[in-house]
Amino acid sequence: MTDALTIARDLVRCPSVTPADAGALGVLESILKSAGFEIHRVTFSEPGAADIDNLYARIGTGAPHITFAGHTDVVPASDETAWTHGAFSGDVKDGFLYGRGAVDMKGGIACSVAAALAYLADIGGKPKGSISFLITGDEEDVAVNGTIKLLQWVAARGEKFDHCVLGEPSNVEALGDCIKIGRRGSQSGTLYVDGVQGHVAYPHRASNPVPDISALIVALSNEPLDHGSDQFQASNLEFTSVDVGNPASNVIPGQARAKFNIRFNDHHTQETLKALVEARVANAAGNRIRARIVWEPSNANVFVTKPGAFTDLAVAAIEEVTGRKPELSTSGGTSDARFIASYCPVIEFGLVGQTMHQIDERTPVSDLEKLTKIYRGVLDRYFG
Amino acid sequence: MTDALTIARDLVRCPSVTPADAGALGVLESILKSAGFEIHRVTFSEPGAADIDNLYARIGTGAPHITFAGHTDVVPASDETAWTHGAFSGDVKDGFLYGRGAVDMKGGIACSVAAALAYLADIGGKPKGSISFLITGDEEDVAVNGTIKLLQWVAARGEKFDHCVLGEPSNVEALGDCIKIGRRGSQSGTLYVDGVQGHVAYPHRASNPVPDISALIVALSNEPLDHGSDQFQASNLEFTSVDVGNPASNVIPGQARAKFNIRFNDHHTQETLKALVEARVANAAGNRIRARIVWEPSNANVFVTKPGAFTDLAVAAIEEVTGRKPELSTSGGTSDARFIASYCPVIEFGLVGQTMHQIDERTPVSDLEKLTKIYRGVLDRYFG
Repeated sequence: MTDALTIARDLVRCPSVTPADAGALGVLESILKSAGFEIHRVTFSEPGAADIDNLYARIGTGAPHITFAGHTDVVPASDETAWTHGAFSGDVKDGFLYGRGAVDMKGGIACSVAAALAYLADIGGKPKGSISFLITGDEEDVAVNGTIKLLQWVAARGEKFDHCVLGEPSNVEALGDCIKIGRRGSQSGTLYVDGVQGHVAYPHRASNPVPDISALIVALSNEPLDHGSDQFQASNLEFTSVDVGNPASNVIPGQARAKFNIRFNDHHTQETLKALVEARVANAAGNRIRARIVWEPSNANVFVTKPGAFTDLAVAAIEEVTGRKPELSTSGGTSDARFIASYCPVIEFGLVGQTMHQIDERTPVSDLEKLTKIYRGVLDRYFG
Repeated sequence: MTDALTIARDLVRCPSVTPADAGALGVLESILKSAGFEIHRVTFSEPGAADIDNLYARIGTGAPHITFAGHTDVVPASDETAWTHGAFSGDVKDGFLYGRGAVDMKGGIACSVAAALAYLADIGGKPKGSISFLITGDEEDVAVNGTIKLLQWVAARGEKFDHCVLGEPSNVEALGDCIKIGRRGSQSGTLYVDGVQGHVAYPHRASNPVPDISALIVALSNEPLDHGSDQFQASNLEFTSVDVGNPASNVIPGQARAKFNIRFNDHHTQETLKALVEARVANAAGNRIRARIVWEPSNANVFVTKPGAFTDLAVAAIEEVTGRKPELSTSGGTSDARFIASYCPVIEFGLVGQTMHQIDERTPVSDLEKLTKIYRGVLDRYFG
């Protein structure tokens, strides 16, 4: 039986700095093929972006269908000479596996593969439903030729997922402290206020957009968008820049603009959020201030996997192995879960994120063993 | 006797586009020398600026001492082919003298010289006090080697002025409609607000300076600096730019800055004005907002020649010739009067400004004749 540490080491030793694959998907392909999975390697292209290799592997044909998602690409090693152990050495020292991707997230993938192999071996080969792996090499950079297209490709084959576990490093301090069950949405825009340019000595002939946009910024910043929801903290609007760019100290400018970003919860959709903000701007502007918003395109809508049977079985598996009751969190940045959420309920649970993207990224070997047991516990309960 | 039109034509025909002199001061020197004036040609230098020729001419040694100030440099002709008559031709057509400087302000200088010559001829040579001419070639551009240094140079000789008439085109619509008796001061500054940079997803770990500077801009823009004075309209503060320059939509910036300009009246000096604005910023900022102002250097302090005997005699001379009672105004932009005001009371009265700095700059010849009579009337009353 191939254990998680061996798989993780083999993956770390592939220098798959995004968008390079460097053999990482091949490592998974050969292991999963031996265990009876049907393997698909799919390459996606997009003008202006690198071609990306992806892997979809499934065993079983029926429902329920649980998929383990992940990515084998990693961020660069940064200064490789600063690493105690080579960034792609896969060295194990004092109980730690060192290397880029050890926690984000080759380690997590290794544990899910090891858990599936152990589960299949114990039940004699085929699950009652289906187990699959949805692995991309395009998560750390532009994320256009990865999970988003692989999900479409699987759907086009007529296949459906019932649940997904994404093995991103979700834990903050210790294995078992946090499951991510959703993420806030993100929406950016630019507020424009038009005035009338003129000379500062004759302000009555001009209309200064600077105090006007300032009044709108104050109004939008002072009024909360909501007060949070069961699963989310309050939505928040932050102005990230305000600019005029007028170098002339004797000229009242003709236009001012302010950029903002909103992190929003499940009280809103992108559409209702935009309508709310536009109404507030219109109200604060009155008939006097000429204001408008230009919205940025965004694919970061809010999503949440509401606590229920699926999260309960994950919590039970985690508690059994770690003794910790994980927080069901919706904080933090973005991941491929935002794409998966359109297809099936998804939770994120993996290793501890403390060293991710840093020099000497590493995970305790004992965490690899425990996470494998947790995933195995998820499979036992899911098909039990 | 040399009349104003002849002097004005001779001056216009010198293409003295700032900083060039092109013989303009020489025209004045020869006329004034013949009339008995003591002539001083003084050249001033400054690193980074052109050397500039200036002329100081005085007749008489006693008090009272009235000086006629002016500049012989002109702004460029712009598109010379667009002129009906050559910009430096000095053509007279249909009762108008055409040319760059005809009103701003070779015409005004010509009238004051013609008036002085006529007055001196009538009184037989020497005035009861002193008449002088304070003429620079550096007004239209940087104004560092002109009137400001010539005033210092005269003062260093132990000479004092009692009153000054600056022949800038002060009239708006018709000769006699306006005497400028002062100007508002101008003071620029930059308001800085320091926050704490951070990620938009974690606003509680950051402090966004954008809403904070917006609140200060609103506070400073909403509260009037004063409600005007006897001679001045209300002081006014305009924000001319607000800038952050943050291109990252997921980053809360660490600093914001806003540029402003204040046009202020005689309720303030530069010092009291700065103290007032700083107190308002401190009050609006409270203990929470970290704000500070960096003031620009400025030599444009407010000044006013309060209505009295000197303005009365100018008004009387104007009314006698034009039948108009001029407004005593403090509106409009800056001139060399701001420098002269530190030495003696100064009024600005000259031709009608409508065509100044434009294609086909021109003055009615009849205005040259009338302005000469007005200046003559001033001299009669001044020494009468």
